[in-house]
Amino acid sequence: MALTEFEIIKHFFASTPAIKNSDADDHVTGGVAENFCGDFSGDIVKGIGDDAAVLNVPADRQLVVTTDTLVESVHFPENANPRDLAFRSVAVNISDIAAMGGEPKWISLALTMPCADEQWLSEFSAGLREAARYFSVNLVGGDTTRGPLTLTLTAQGLVPFGQSLLRSGARLGEGIYVSGSLAGATAALHQMQSAGACTPSLLHEFYRPQSRVPVGVALRDLASACIDISDGLIADLQHIMSASGVGAELWLDTLPINEHALNYADKHDFDVLAWACGGGDDYELCFTMPHRFEDRLLTRLKPHNIAITKIGRVVADNKIICLDNQGKPKAWKQTGYQHF
Amino acid sequence: MALTEFEIIKHFFASTPAIKNSDADDHVTGGVAENFCGDFSGDIVKGIGDDAAVLNVPADRQLVVTTDTLVESVHFPENANPRDLAFRSVAVNISDIAAMGGEPKWISLALTMPCADEQWLSEFSAGLREAARYFSVNLVGGDTTRGPLTLTLTAQGLVPFGQSLLRSGARLGEGIYVSGSLAGATAALHQMQSAGACTPSLLHEFYRPQSRVPVGVALRDLASACIDISDGLIADLQHIMSASGVGAELWLDTLPINEHALNYADKHDFDVLAWACGGGDDYELCFTMPHRFEDRLLTRLKPHNIAITKIGRVVADNKIICLDNQGKPKAWKQTGYQHF
Repeated sequence: MALTEFEIIKHFFASTPAIKNSDADDHVTGGVAENFCGDFSGDIVKGIGDDAAVLNVPADRQLVVTTDTLVESVHFPENANPRDLAFRSVAVNISDIAAMGGEPKWISLALTMPCADEQWLSEFSAGLREAARYFSVNLVGGDTTRGPLTLTLTAQGLVPFGQSLLRSGARLGEGIYVSGSLAGATAALHQMQSAGACTPSLLHEFYRPQSRVPVGVALRDLASACIDISDGLIADLQHIMSASGVGAELWLDTLPINEHALNYADKHDFDVLAWACGGGDDYELCFTMPHRFEDRLLTRLKPHNIAITKIGRVVADNKIICLDNQGKPKAWKQTGYQHF
Repeated sequence: MALTEFEIIKHFFASTPAIKNSDADDHVTGGVAENFCGDFSGDIVKGIGDDAAVLNVPADRQLVVTTDTLVESVHFPENANPRDLAFRSVAVNISDIAAMGGEPKWISLALTMPCADEQWLSEFSAGLREAARYFSVNLVGGDTTRGPLTLTLTAQGLVPFGQSLLRSGARLGEGIYVSGSLAGATAALHQMQSAGACTPSLLHEFYRPQSRVPVGVALRDLASACIDISDGLIADLQHIMSASGVGAELWLDTLPINEHALNYADKHDFDVLAWACGGGDDYELCFTMPHRFEDRLLTRLKPHNIAITKIGRVVADNKIICLDNQGKPKAWKQTGYQHF
C-alpha cells in the first residue's frame, strides 16, 4: 500500500514517544516536543510535526550550521544498504561540525526517494536512529519528496562563544596534524568499484566514519586552523593554507595509513600513499597547532583512544611541498575529489 | 569550460565583498565573514567558505529551522526559469518560518544539478540574491553536487522566547482566518500543464509567493495556532485541527480567491473553489484566533497592505465541515497534495 508523506513521517521518523518539553514560557500550547532519539535535554521546544522546529540556543554558545548532500551513483553506489547510508549521511555532516570545534545537537533530513518502500524506510530510519544515538543528536525536522534518491542533511551544533575553529589561522612554524588514519574510504570505494563488493572491514571505513567530535572539542583553545578531510588530505589542507596565507611541508612517510587499506593495497600492489593524499571521504580532522600544545592535546584525547599524528609543518612559501622519507620533494598531481 | 565546486561557490554564491565581522572574541582569526546579500548586521561570525557557518543567536530569541526540497518534474516543470526557481525555493522555506511567527535570518542551499552550466548558474544566483534581499536573509552555506536537478533549502529564523506559533493551540469558538488569496498557484500549474505555458500574472503567483513574515510576526501574541498553506487549505487546516483536538466549520463563500485564478477559471469553466480548498502552493498563512483580536491584527497589518479574511470557526466535532452560501454542508473529497 502506498504511504503518504504524513504516514512516512509518523511511522519512520517520529517513532519514539512524545516527551513533555521544558519550555514553560510557551504560551500557546505548553507544547509537546516529539523526539527522535533518546537523549533529550530540553533544548527542543518543538521537533518534528510543525511547520518548523523551535530550538533553544544557550546564551554563551554560538550556532554552527552545515549542509551536505549525497546523491545515488555519485556519492554512493546503487542499492547501498539503507542503514549504512543513513549513518554515513549523518556522519559526513557531523564531521563538519567537529571541524569547527562544535558539539552536534540537531539534524534535519531532506530525503528524496523514487518511491515509499516500507522495507527500505524501516532500515534507513534504523540507521538514522543509530547515528543519532552515536553522535548524540536529535532529528528535529525535514522533508520527504519523490524523485531520484538524494539525501541532504543539515546539522546544527553549538560552540562556546568565540571558540569556533576556522581554516584561516595557521601560522608559520606550527605543526600540521591529522586524527585517526587515512585511505580507508578510498580503498573501500576502489574495491567496491573493481570487485563489485567489499570486505566488511573496508565497508565499515566507508559507511561508518568515526566521530571526531572529541578532537574538535579538545582543539578549541589549541588549534589555529582546522578542516575535515572530505575531498582528500592535500586538497583540504590546501584550503587551510589558502585561507591562512601560508604553505605546508608534508612528510609523506609519517602519514597514518588505515591498516585495512594497507593490506588491500599491498595485496594488489596499489599506491596507498596516493589514496592517503588524494582520496576523499576519510572524515578525519586535519589541523595546525603550535608544537608546545601536543602533550596537552594527547592528554585530553587519551580517554577517547583517538590517535593524532604530526604530518608536517607550516612554511612561508604559499604552496604544499610533499617530502619523501629521504626529505626529497616528491611531485604531486592529484587535486582531490572533483565535484563536477 | 568545466567549473569546479570551489569556482562555482566563489563565482556565483559568495559574490559580494567580504565584510569585517563584529565578533571581537574570535581568538583564532579575527575572522572575516563573506556575505551574500546586503543586509549584514553582525550576526554572521563566519558565512560561506569554511566547514560550517558560525552564527550568533541573541539570548532572548529561540531558533526556528525548516527544510524543503524541490525536485524537477515533481515540484516544478523541466526547463523552469532558474531565476524564478531560486526565488520560489527560498520563498517556500521562508513561508514555514513565517508560519511559526519567526523572522527569517539565514539560508543554506543544497543544489544538485546535472552539470555546471554557467548561464543557468548566473541566473539562478541572481534569483537567489533577489530572494535574499526580498526576505532579508543571508546565504550562509550549502553544498553543490552533481545529479538530477534538486534544490534543498534550509531556512533559519528567530522568534522571541516562548512566542512561536504552533499548530496545536486552536480553541473552540475561535475564528479561522487566511492571509492574502487562494488558488493562484494551482491555476498557474493547471495552465502550465494544459497549455504548456502560463500568463505572466499567474506565473508570478506560482514562482513568487509573497512574504507573509509580517503576518506571522503580527500574530505572535494573537493567534492560537498557525500553519502555512503548502498542501492545500483543507489538508493544512486539518493539521491544525488534529494537533489541537478540535474541528472546523469552513464557509466556502468567504474564501478569498485570487483574481487571476478567478478569471482563468471563469473563462474555462473550472471549479476555482476546488482549487482554493484542495490546491497547494499558495503559501498563505491559515490561523485561528479569538474574534476580539481582529481589529488589533488589522491595525498591525495596515502598513503591509495584506488582506486577512475570516473563513470559518473552530467547532467541537473533530472534523472539517464545509458550508455553502446557503449554510448547507457540502461534501468534500480532495485531500490535498499527495507526496507519494
